[in-house]
Amino acid sequence: MAINALTKNTKHLISALYESGVKNFVISPGSRTTPIALLLAEYDRQNDDMNLYIDVDERSASFFALGIAKKQQEPVVLLGTSGTAITEYTSAVAEAHISHIPLIVLSTDRPAELQGNGAPQTLPQHQIFGEFTKNYVSFTLQDDHPDVTAYIDFMTQKLVHESKIAPCGPLQINLPLRKPLMPQLGDKQNIVVSSLTFAMPVKTIDALELSQTRVLILAGPNEDEDYASELAEFSKQYHVPIIADVLSRVRTQETIYGIDALLKSNMIRPNYKPELVIRFGATPVSANVLQWLKSENIPVWYVGLTAGSDHSRHATRVFQISPTVFLSQITVTNNLEFYQLWQDLNVKPRQVMGEASIASTLDAILPEHTTIFVANSMAIRDIDDIFTGKLTRNIYANRGANGIDGIVSTALGMSSTSSQRSVLLIGDLTLFHDMNGLMMAKQYQLPLDVIVINNNGGGIFSFLPQATAESYFETLFGTPLNLDMKKVASLYDMPYIKINQAQDLKAIIATPIDGPRLIEFKSNRLSNVTAHHQLMGSDK
Amino acid sequence: MAINALTKNTKHLISALYESGVKNFVISPGSRTTPIALLLAEYDRQNDDMNLYIDVDERSASFFALGIAKKQQEPVVLLGTSGTAITEYTSAVAEAHISHIPLIVLSTDRPAELQGNGAPQTLPQHQIFGEFTKNYVSFTLQDDHPDVTAYIDFMTQKLVHESKIAPCGPLQINLPLRKPLMPQLGDKQNIVVSSLTFAMPVKTIDALELSQTRVLILAGPNEDEDYASELAEFSKQYHVPIIADVLSRVRTQETIYGIDALLKSNMIRPNYKPELVIRFGATPVSANVLQWLKSENIPVWYVGLTAGSDHSRHATRVFQISPTVFLSQITVTNNLEFYQLWQDLNVKPRQVMGEASIASTLDAILPEHTTIFVANSMAIRDIDDIFTGKLTRNIYANRGANGIDGIVSTALGMSSTSSQRSVLLIGDLTLFHDMNGLMMAKQYQLPLDVIVINNNGGGIFSFLPQATAESYFETLFGTPLNLDMKKVASLYDMPYIKINQAQDLKAIIATPIDGPRLIEFKSNRLSNVTAHHQLMGSDK
Repeated sequence: MAINALTKNTKHLISALYESGVKNFVISPGSRTTPIALLLAEYDRQNDDMNLYIDVDERSASFFALGIAKKQQEPVVLLGTSGTAITEYTSAVAEAHISHIPLIVLSTDRPAELQGNGAPQTLPQHQIFGEFTKNYVSFTLQDDHPDVTAYIDFMTQKLVHESKIAPCGPLQINLPLRKPLMPQLGDKQNIVVSSLTFAMPVKTIDALELSQTRVLILAGPNEDEDYASELAEFSKQYHVPIIADVLSRVRTQETIYGIDALLKSNMIRPNYKPELVIRFGATPVSANVLQWLKSENIPVWYVGLTAGSDHSRHATRVFQISPTVFLSQITVTNNLEFYQLWQDLNVKPRQVMGEASIASTLDAILPEHTTIFVANSMAIRDIDDIFTGKLTRNIYANRGANGIDGIVSTALGMSSTSSQRSVLLIGDLTLFHDMNGLMMAKQYQLPLDVIVINNNGGGIFSFLPQATAESYFETLFGTPLNLDMKKVASLYDMPYIKINQAQDLKAIIATPIDGPRLIEFKSNRLSNVTAHHQLMGSDK
Repeated sequence: MAINALTKNTKHLISALYESGVKNFVISPGSRTTPIALLLAEYDRQNDDMNLYIDVDERSASFFALGIAKKQQEPVVLLGTSGTAITEYTSAVAEAHISHIPLIVLSTDRPAELQGNGAPQTLPQHQIFGEFTKNYVSFTLQDDHPDVTAYIDFMTQKLVHESKIAPCGPLQINLPLRKPLMPQLGDKQNIVVSSLTFAMPVKTIDALELSQTRVLILAGPNEDEDYASELAEFSKQYHVPIIADVLSRVRTQETIYGIDALLKSNMIRPNYKPELVIRFGATPVSANVLQWLKSENIPVWYVGLTAGSDHSRHATRVFQISPTVFLSQITVTNNLEFYQLWQDLNVKPRQVMGEASIASTLDAILPEHTTIFVANSMAIRDIDDIFTGKLTRNIYANRGANGIDGIVSTALGMSSTSSQRSVLLIGDLTLFHDMNGLMMAKQYQLPLDVIVINNNGGGIFSFLPQATAESYFETLFGTPLNLDMKKVASLYDMPYIKINQAQDLKAIIATPIDGPRLIEFKSNRLSNVTAHHQLMGSDK
């Protein structure tokens, strides 16, 4: 039997994705996805380095894909069926847009003749993610014309490339399909997509010798190219101190940690003031550090392929080039005294109590290079204040839109990329928001330790002004869910361990198991506020 | 202390919503929502007919709001915080758009100076739902200018009105807010919004005497004005038979039920063919009935304020007017024989087995006027084939985008509008998709019987061509989740009852409790296919 257009063009699409380096596919079942899903499954059986995940909740699926893409820095494909299945991807696509993660959404659709005309399960899917996607294209897979096939070959490779050039981001390929939807399985015809190579031009600057002698580096969250060793080398050579955000992936014992706590407790005296700050990466977890640069009117150079975004509106020069290239062109006069002044901050004692003790213990006991995913709200702030960078720099979070949605799934996606155990640090409210995500942990037995800090509600609000509106607070902001974590674990067949103190983690982490595990630490929102105010001896 | 702009304008917004008839508000907690949430809570304490719901998962929250709006036919307000919290509303907003449900999204936002510039939790929220919203406006609540206040008064009332005129639908009010966000609570200043009345023009047609004598009515899903009594009267007066979709809210024992099963089993012989079909409502649950009209080339007049959407592309005349007005202008020559021919179909025996037996039992035993929410996929098809309209016409489903997302929450929103117990009929996969929705059942102790037909996976796919792709079927389409329903119930503190046969429902329904309850019926996907093919004696 001759191969039909649907089968042939779908195979071209799959092959073009695979040959461009896309190896991970997350599918949510649906009728309209039938031809793509079946041919993907067939292709998967023939290629050992391809991974196919099935996730029935599209919201979880999209964050799961985000987690893989974040860790691998490679585009991941989402395949979903027409209708609200596709809109369920919106939050993860928005996060990918802001935090520059490559994602490729294959949105199957009803054919043109069913649009806007009362057909069930039919939405206007054209550019359905609005400004969140970098590009959009529609492939008519059932059209038996050689130009269509050639278009699929070329455009697919071009789009995969586009998703990977800075600023990386998500894009959508819409696939309108008419019934019948069954492809020809087992067809032996060899589909070879001719490979397209994209040159990657490099932007640079002329060599530059800095006149300033009190230079400080602020490394914000980095999910782009790895410049850890170049930055460490630069810092060592010129004795330039580095304030390293916990998500910068450059935090080591030689960099300054916990700038937010240091600033809050007035440890940063006038003599610490630099003449110039060179800033890399995205918006730091610490809101105070940007405030400080601005209020002290410290000149800031902002470097990176996506540099220039600064909501504190305080940057003097912007270099939209690779940090590695920038560092290779810059020389600074040594200032050992200034370097040592900053370096000494790392040994200031911190009184770690309450929820923060979990972060502190993890910093001390995790196996080297462990990947940690950190939820937003309180968890990420604690980790930023406390992690020293001694054992791991593999710390990730969704710090684009900073949502509390999809965190479990993002962590699981990340965990799926490695056989080494990963850790998720998360609060009870954020866990609840994506509890469905745990289905993937169960079904794929992913090696993740989910550490839940359970303060029964929205802990961060106790630090904000609304905490004074006592008569409405618990209902509107505290929102206790009274979620029984033991039952949550049981629902997903996960071992459950309750710890009473952070130190208990030591024995648990030292005893790895196969598959996922849920570890609960019960906390109290009110006493946690007190504990945090004592971190650096401040009584604020 | 003088009232500040934020407090004053927010009170105007709330008062304008309330005075326009908006009484239900669903809030998801967040920092940016603080002023609106607190002033809403204050307003709520002063007004007994106002309902404030707090739902931490915005996806569930948006479907919960949809459920209230669907049942009440009144706009419901969603209040969410900036970032992905707002994108989580997308699926429910899409469903509201297609099925014409009024929803008003209050999306709090970061102020203009933080847009597109690296600020955390900041998305481009301008028209974030694209084509799904009917209108969009932005209010600058912190702007202390009398024109702003007047604008809020006028536009809010205009928008509420707009959401309620056909085609009804969702809209977005964006609220950029700058810190500090705390409003003045307890301010005694009386805010009175001057009320705006909108005239509602009525479109009509000249009186019309039909020349056709074999006239049939097809009443599709109706979530608009109630024309049940007018239609029943018309049918009785002129002996015009009515095929009533289960969601038409006009299905009684005098209308024809289960047209899909009747057509599939070839019960509709050539002598049943009408000269004219008058069609009301949206796309019927039965795909076959539209196919039949088209293949038999039966003239179709399509009547209703949103008439004209027909993906079978088979309508002869479109009347975009109210069905009540239309019916008052039409006269038909009596044809008792044709009427009786159709009427007799209602007594054809049906062999109800498998999952369909649940629908059949519910039809026989539910208290009169019980509200039933029905999930998509298999559940709605069974109910459409089997429900006779004897005891209730209050049957609802999300039949716009036909998603399997948000069903639990939509049913709970609906259930929240009445103290009478409601029923949700749902499969295991759909329940799982919105399991988080059950948190509202627990927290508000809503009187809903959740009846889960658990066939451990995607039952509908066994009826589709992909069932033949055996070696991939279970992984890609069957997708068994092995969800333990007893544990699900326990997690949300819901009583759990397992039934072995549909008849067991009788005793359970006869013993109502307070609050929610989960009832499980285990089924088998394969044997269910056989059972369904035997419904009308067909062996297809």
